[in-house]
Amino acid sequence: MPVDPDAPVRISAFNWVPPFAQGRVRDLRPRWALEEAGIPYAVRKLDVMAERPADYFHEQPFGQVPSYHDEAVSLFESGAIVLHIGRDCEALLPAEPAARARSTAWLIAALNSVEPFLMQLATIDIFAAGEEWAKLRRPGVIEMIDKRLSRLSDALGEKPYLDGERFTAGDLMMTTVLRMLDGKGLLERYPNLVAYKARCEARPAFQAALAAQMADFEERQTARM
Amino acid sequence: MPVDPDAPVRISAFNWVPPFAQGRVRDLRPRWALEEAGIPYAVRKLDVMAERPADYFHEQPFGQVPSYHDEAVSLFESGAIVLHIGRDCEALLPAEPAARARSTAWLIAALNSVEPFLMQLATIDIFAAGEEWAKLRRPGVIEMIDKRLSRLSDALGEKPYLDGERFTAGDLMMTTVLRMLDGKGLLERYPNLVAYKARCEARPAFQAALAAQMADFEERQTARM
Repeated sequence: MPVDPDAPVRISAFNWVPPFAQGRVRDLRPRWALEEAGIPYAVRKLDVMAERPADYFHEQPFGQVPSYHDEAVSLFESGAIVLHIGRDCEALLPAEPAARARSTAWLIAALNSVEPFLMQLATIDIFAAGEEWAKLRRPGVIEMIDKRLSRLSDALGEKPYLDGERFTAGDLMMTTVLRMLDGKGLLERYPNLVAYKARCEARPAFQAALAAQMADFEERQTARM
Repeated sequence: MPVDPDAPVRISAFNWVPPFAQGRVRDLRPRWALEEAGIPYAVRKLDVMAERPADYFHEQPFGQVPSYHDEAVSLFESGAIVLHIGRDCEALLPAEPAARARSTAWLIAALNSVEPFLMQLATIDIFAAGEEWAKLRRPGVIEMIDKRLSRLSDALGEKPYLDGERFTAGDLMMTTVLRMLDGKGLLERYPNLVAYKARCEARPAFQAALAAQMADFEERQTARM
């Protein structure tokens, strides 16, 4: 369990989020990468309901989580943080340049070709639930998502991971993105994607990262009682 | 002018797109990066109106442009392609690891924290123009975009480029994303962003990349007459 308040690596996270977001906040991504790499980390906890502290925008220009820093660099964007952690960790990024580039392609595909449509569905189902535009728009977004899942399913085929036999940072990112579909009944049309996601989520590093994010919320929930 | 049909580097692009997309298709990104790096490249031209050739999905799982290959690797996702081209090109990615990581953060910020909202606006204004949901949703999307631009403007401040004095791949990507706002009157609220975008677009490598994309369309337009 590498959460350590004295660690030189520090990420930011929320001290609590509503139930729909628990286990799904994006600090899960660097937590998972750090667990794969065996690197201990501290957590700067922010209050999701409050204004961000003014200094936080120097860490994360958009005020979101996670931010990241270590002895060498301050970073934001979960994708860039995972690539940075993976730089010296072959469990995340293969050393061979072509394999490393392909892993990066899958990581960015998750962030730019899949997640934007899932973010739209989250907006429709959670933040704009009940609004007229959301009701009218939902079928079109579902169709876009299904098209992307269909292509992703074809690309995965019978392989265990997106680039073949080895788990990489691309799979880490794609798994955290596909988890946004939990409970939607959309991924289930593609059994190979369901099995793929379960395969990635079964990794001890993922389980440890998830437990660490949830533990932070429970701490706050207990404190509230 | 590094377009060369015999070059070992090859990207994919469309042989024609409707006027609203001309000069804005995503193959502009690798073209620009290759121009900055001085690397000649060939182009595989696809018909935007036709089904993609079946073999193309092996190059680009979602059937989009650009794909990329060189003697070592086949890649997709413009962000991953630009990072790959930048690996050995200090004009795109600084050699110093912390600066390289920050440049990557800005590149991914463009793709995951800014572009998804601009893609929604493009959908509303072009592909769903006249639809009821689009009319109802537009103000909310404009508000989201303005929030992101406001933060981006603060982060840029008085600096010439996002990470300071030097242009990097992060600026390349952010510029191509901000160009999606041309004619919308939204960027104009932030004079430092307008000047920043103009500064990046004035680079000879950008101008050459833009001319090369447009030249491909003109070739086809002439052939049609």
